[in-house]
Amino acid sequence: MALPANIGPAPFNIVRLSHVVLTVTDLQASRAFYVDVLGLQVTEETGTRISLRAMEERGHHCIVLEQGDIAVAHELGFKVHGEDDLDRAKAYFDQRGLPTEWAEVPHQARTLRTRDPQGIPLEFYARMDRLPPIHQKYALYRGVKPLRIDHFNCFSPDVGEAVEFYSSIGFRLTEYTATEDTDEFWAAWMHRKGGVHDIAFTNGAGPRLHHVAFWVPTPLNIIDLLDLMSTTGYVANIERGPGRHGISNAFFLYIRDPDGHRIEIYCSDYQTIDPDHEPIRWDLKDPQRQTLWGAPAPRSWFEEGSVFAGVTPRLPRLKATPIIAP
Amino acid sequence: MALPANIGPAPFNIVRLSHVVLTVTDLQASRAFYVDVLGLQVTEETGTRISLRAMEERGHHCIVLEQGDIAVAHELGFKVHGEDDLDRAKAYFDQRGLPTEWAEVPHQARTLRTRDPQGIPLEFYARMDRLPPIHQKYALYRGVKPLRIDHFNCFSPDVGEAVEFYSSIGFRLTEYTATEDTDEFWAAWMHRKGGVHDIAFTNGAGPRLHHVAFWVPTPLNIIDLLDLMSTTGYVANIERGPGRHGISNAFFLYIRDPDGHRIEIYCSDYQTIDPDHEPIRWDLKDPQRQTLWGAPAPRSWFEEGSVFAGVTPRLPRLKATPIIAP
Amino acid sequence: MALPANIGPAPFNIVRLSHVVLTVTDLQASRAFYVDVLGLQVTEETGTRISLRAMEERGHHCIVLEQGDIAVAHELGFKVHGEDDLDRAKAYFDQRGLPTEWAEVPHQARTLRTRDPQGIPLEFYARMDRLPPIHQKYALYRGVKPLRIDHFNCFSPDVGEAVEFYSSIGFRLTEYTATEDTDEFWAAWMHRKGGVHDIAFTNGAGPRLHHVAFWVPTPLNIIDLLDLMSTTGYVANIERGPGRHGISNAFFLYIRDPDGHRIEIYCSDYQTIDPDHEPIRWDLKDPQRQTLWGAPAPRSWFEEGSVFAGVTPRLPRLKATPIIAP
Amino acid sequence: MALPANIGPAPFNIVRLSHVVLTVTDLQASRAFYVDVLGLQVTEETGTRISLRAMEERGHHCIVLEQGDIAVAHELGFKVHGEDDLDRAKAYFDQRGLPTEWAEVPHQARTLRTRDPQGIPLEFYARMDRLPPIHQKYALYRGVKPLRIDHFNCFSPDVGEAVEFYSSIGFRLTEYTATEDTDEFWAAWMHRKGGVHDIAFTNGAGPRLHHVAFWVPTPLNIIDLLDLMSTTGYVANIERGPGRHGISNAFFLYIRDPDGHRIEIYCSDYQTIDPDHEPIRWDLKDPQRQTLWGAPAPRSWFEEGSVFAGVTPRLPRLKATPIIAP
Repeated sequence: MALPANIGPAPFNIVRLSHVVLTVTDLQASRAFYVDVLGLQVTEETGTRISLRAMEERGHHCIVLEQGDIAVAHELGFKVHGEDDLDRAKAYFDQRGLPTEWAEVPHQARTLRTRDPQGIPLEFYARMDRLPPIHQKYALYRGVKPLRIDHFNCFSPDVGEAVEFYSSIGFRLTEYTATEDTDEFWAAWMHRKGGVHDIAFTNGAGPRLHHVAFWVPTPLNIIDLLDLMSTTGYVANIERGPGRHGISNAFFLYIRDPDGHRIEIYCSDYQTIDPDHEPIRWDLKDPQRQTLWGAPAPRSWFEEGSVFAGVTPRLPRLKATPIIAP
Repeated sequence: MALPANIGPAPFNIVRLSHVVLTVTDLQASRAFYVDVLGLQVTEETGTRISLRAMEERGHHCIVLEQGDIAVAHELGFKVHGEDDLDRAKAYFDQRGLPTEWAEVPHQARTLRTRDPQGIPLEFYARMDRLPPIHQKYALYRGVKPLRIDHFNCFSPDVGEAVEFYSSIGFRLTEYTATEDTDEFWAAWMHRKGGVHDIAFTNGAGPRLHHVAFWVPTPLNIIDLLDLMSTTGYVANIERGPGRHGISNAFFLYIRDPDGHRIEIYCSDYQTIDPDHEPIRWDLKDPQRQTLWGAPAPRSWFEEGSVFAGVTPRLPRLKATPIIAP
Repeated sequence: MALPANIGPAPFNIVRLSHVVLTVTDLQASRAFYVDVLGLQVTEETGTRISLRAMEERGHHCIVLEQGDIAVAHELGFKVHGEDDLDRAKAYFDQRGLPTEWAEVPHQARTLRTRDPQGIPLEFYARMDRLPPIHQKYALYRGVKPLRIDHFNCFSPDVGEAVEFYSSIGFRLTEYTATEDTDEFWAAWMHRKGGVHDIAFTNGAGPRLHHVAFWVPTPLNIIDLLDLMSTTGYVANIERGPGRHGISNAFFLYIRDPDGHRIEIYCSDYQTIDPDHEPIRWDLKDPQRQTLWGAPAPRSWFEEGSVFAGVTPRLPRLKATPIIAP
Repeated sequence: MALPANIGPAPFNIVRLSHVVLTVTDLQASRAFYVDVLGLQVTEETGTRISLRAMEERGHHCIVLEQGDIAVAHELGFKVHGEDDLDRAKAYFDQRGLPTEWAEVPHQARTLRTRDPQGIPLEFYARMDRLPPIHQKYALYRGVKPLRIDHFNCFSPDVGEAVEFYSSIGFRLTEYTATEDTDEFWAAWMHRKGGVHDIAFTNGAGPRLHHVAFWVPTPLNIIDLLDLMSTTGYVANIERGPGRHGISNAFFLYIRDPDGHRIEIYCSDYQTIDPDHEPIRWDLKDPQRQTLWGAPAPRSWFEEGSVFAGVTPRLPRLKATPIIAP
């Protein structure tokens, strides 16, 4: 298994992950979860659509909730450096034979939509409406005090293929697991913005969205959220944690929104900005890669995820062995 | 089921829990655990015995480790107000038909030993050697930064009987669970020093010592301990947590020493000093009584404990039902 | 200078400090400060009077705000163990030649009022209306998340005399400063409930109330309060801190309410419950007694305090020297 | 006053600030400060030179201490993306008429040295020796648990000129102050790596190094450092803080090493990676720009700094007015 070069020039310049639209089946129930419990700020609200940002973000939205009949995830959104990067992106995806189209998206300038080779819907833009800073309006902080969207994590039917593709558009590998016998990627964490990841992939029936993660100031904010959720009717929405991941070294908590979309609350990973930053390989037999402190994840965490709108997941190429079950 | 009065005069004045002697089978392995990992301070050390105190304590010892062939717990130690309280205590235990004897214990003045009606060995003293304060010697703080011993927790074959006895010597009930059908005590938390407990009892094969708890400054110290243990060969010694108990509202972690003696790291319970402080009753069917955040405890936590030297545990009077298993 | 015995029997049994009534000149402005900023909970409210409790308290009030023309403090309230302690207290104060009277106080049973020898108005009660616990209603936590009232601090014109009096009614000395030349008390911290203090006295024009303190979970809550106050129009109400006191080892912040009544936010002192707990003497020339980290307090902190209703302060017996100015 | 474009292409690609060499007059005293107190890790040590890294860094050094007769600072080190960036950098500086030379620096590949227009010595490299990760070796964490070098801050005799120069090599402005009457830069924060700054400039006699900053996990680590320093003989080395800056929103502490070199301990600024990230302008009359909570900085903080070896500071072009003194 060859690791990606991690240093070469990319065909276009992706700055960071940006946002995702989630269809939810009860908009007011979701509003209560994302706004009153998590503490995201409403930037626009209609009867069928709510746009949200975290405390430190100046872009118009990082999560958009849309009322619908079934809970699905839509395009994973990324910000590129300039308008010309969009043109270079289109040329690149066209050349790879991937579908492209220009979309009109509220509060975003020209937006390019495509799909990755496994079918994950992606969108890219250079400019989104900017809002005044609120990070020092401390009276607005609530819930877990979310500061910014941190990353996406997806089930992938072929992680090796995902690593190849995202490397080709400039993502850098920071940590990974690989099968010992066949030396193939089992899971991979890849970044653009200088942390452990903007997007990660784990072997599983996919493509599906495993979770969207938000960065918070300290582990105590995560403890505050647990106390709040467990005494306001959300104890069943707590899925896993708190704990520290071996991979990424992050302090984490996984929760489920009213439709089951999974949100990770996350802090304390590390800086990976050096172009010669060496990826860390973890042994699939090492349980500490998942939880440094040893506690196992529940089955749901391994099996459940949000389907992307119109994308049928397929079984993964690699099968789980008892050691790495499920 | 009648609750104890909680206010009446006690036959003698117990100030607080104080210390326990634990027999360990590899003194140096235990030293590494209690001193290098937990951060307790050695106050006296010989080839077969190590005395320890926490950072805020001025008494000579809160834990004494003794080399031996089998891992057992010895007398639970309590400090009484004055020497005359020891005489009143002896008179009270004699009148209850419990065995009493005066013991010579290093660094303690006159020490009274007895057993509670279920066989738990107890000792009482009024004066222990006092040491200079070290709570502002910050260069000595290590590990989890333990500030003081907080409480004992025991399996009891008859919690109702334990509540009656400890109430009779002045302990006050703060929280408890009771069976719904027969309205009998299932577990009880009782205090002298103004927190949720100096000692607690849970229905189970006993008497056995379930754990000894130490108070630490904040949940972040517990996270630091988890990180330290999980990267220095102690990951298997992490048994349960971190989490927040419903009962006591404490943020907790349970770990096992090299012999399996269980230590709880604990912070953030509440003040219970009012004589009219009302006990809180929890429903045995409410899983949040154990972990507010919903995560279950492992089987070992319900089943395993330290035997007291020379005391044969017996089966509990109340049997667990599936709801409250085990 | 003789230290008080700290162990003898008291004429009556004081459990802890309990509450104080403050007259404020703009009740709604004070409500915003104590409720919206600090996070105390309203337990009763009329057009002229607001009763407050902290998150962990079950008694009806720890602070009562009363509308009035000038900002003053009223009786310092203490809870005693039982009704008979009130009778013993009356007998004791009568015998000392101090004024006593029974007062009707809303939500309190029989209440005894008196004055200490320097004129501080005091009140004692055994029973106050009890309210349901809210310490696990995490949705109610706001502001600094105040858990409980912790202590009073007063300017005293004669600290030695104050120590003698409060020792005589059972308060125990934990830390103090004394003049080096004449070996007289300069400041003293005294407790009933097992922390560093329920009440403290500092040499100065008095008697006046220097501050009322509230206990909070961790230093991070104090940082949260600073962020909140400094971005909601209360930056001028921040007087001193954050810092750590040498004396008491507490992490502290001093703020002023809209009338200038001083509130301390406080965490992390230590347990002092042992009857043989040794007081710590600090050198008046040691600036770390005030701030362990070295930063000086502002002049206002040394000079300003709340007058007790109807009590004219007098100059202190001991004059400040340049070393311990002001 | 025109703000820099912040988006245009740079002549070469700087990744981040990297390191600095400090001459110290007592190497063992400095070792005690940086290693035992701060908690930096020694990566190489001789009788006259000690190399240090922080816990999350894989490059060989972020601070190098060199024994010498007078305490001075040397080149501010920056990492560039690739070897060809060094050639482009040389061409750029040559064209600007700035001195350039290739230097041999231990553990660094080809290193380019130059000076900025005001005389600050700079060095650039693409490759430094890489060391194995230690961020999960929790037994090594000590002191303030420094994670990584965060930024340099310099006194500048002409901040407007500094902004022009660093903008021209790709630094982006995040926050700044400007004079109201003449609308000229007074202070500026500029970044490459996506936080508030890699380097900042404040109007003052210069060029001099005001401080080097390290990133730590949470404010509690800064409190731990304060407790440690104030009880191990370093209380006089605490200069300012803890507090929160208005500018950058960071929680900060400023300390002085045994020679007076200033170190900032820093956490919780925000992500600035968007190319259209809008700089924040602060009013020079607003004291909250310096300390959000209102406490003023001591005079030493405004006046003292480390001289760069061989560089004579000159008076600043703009004079302080009483409002912004000193």
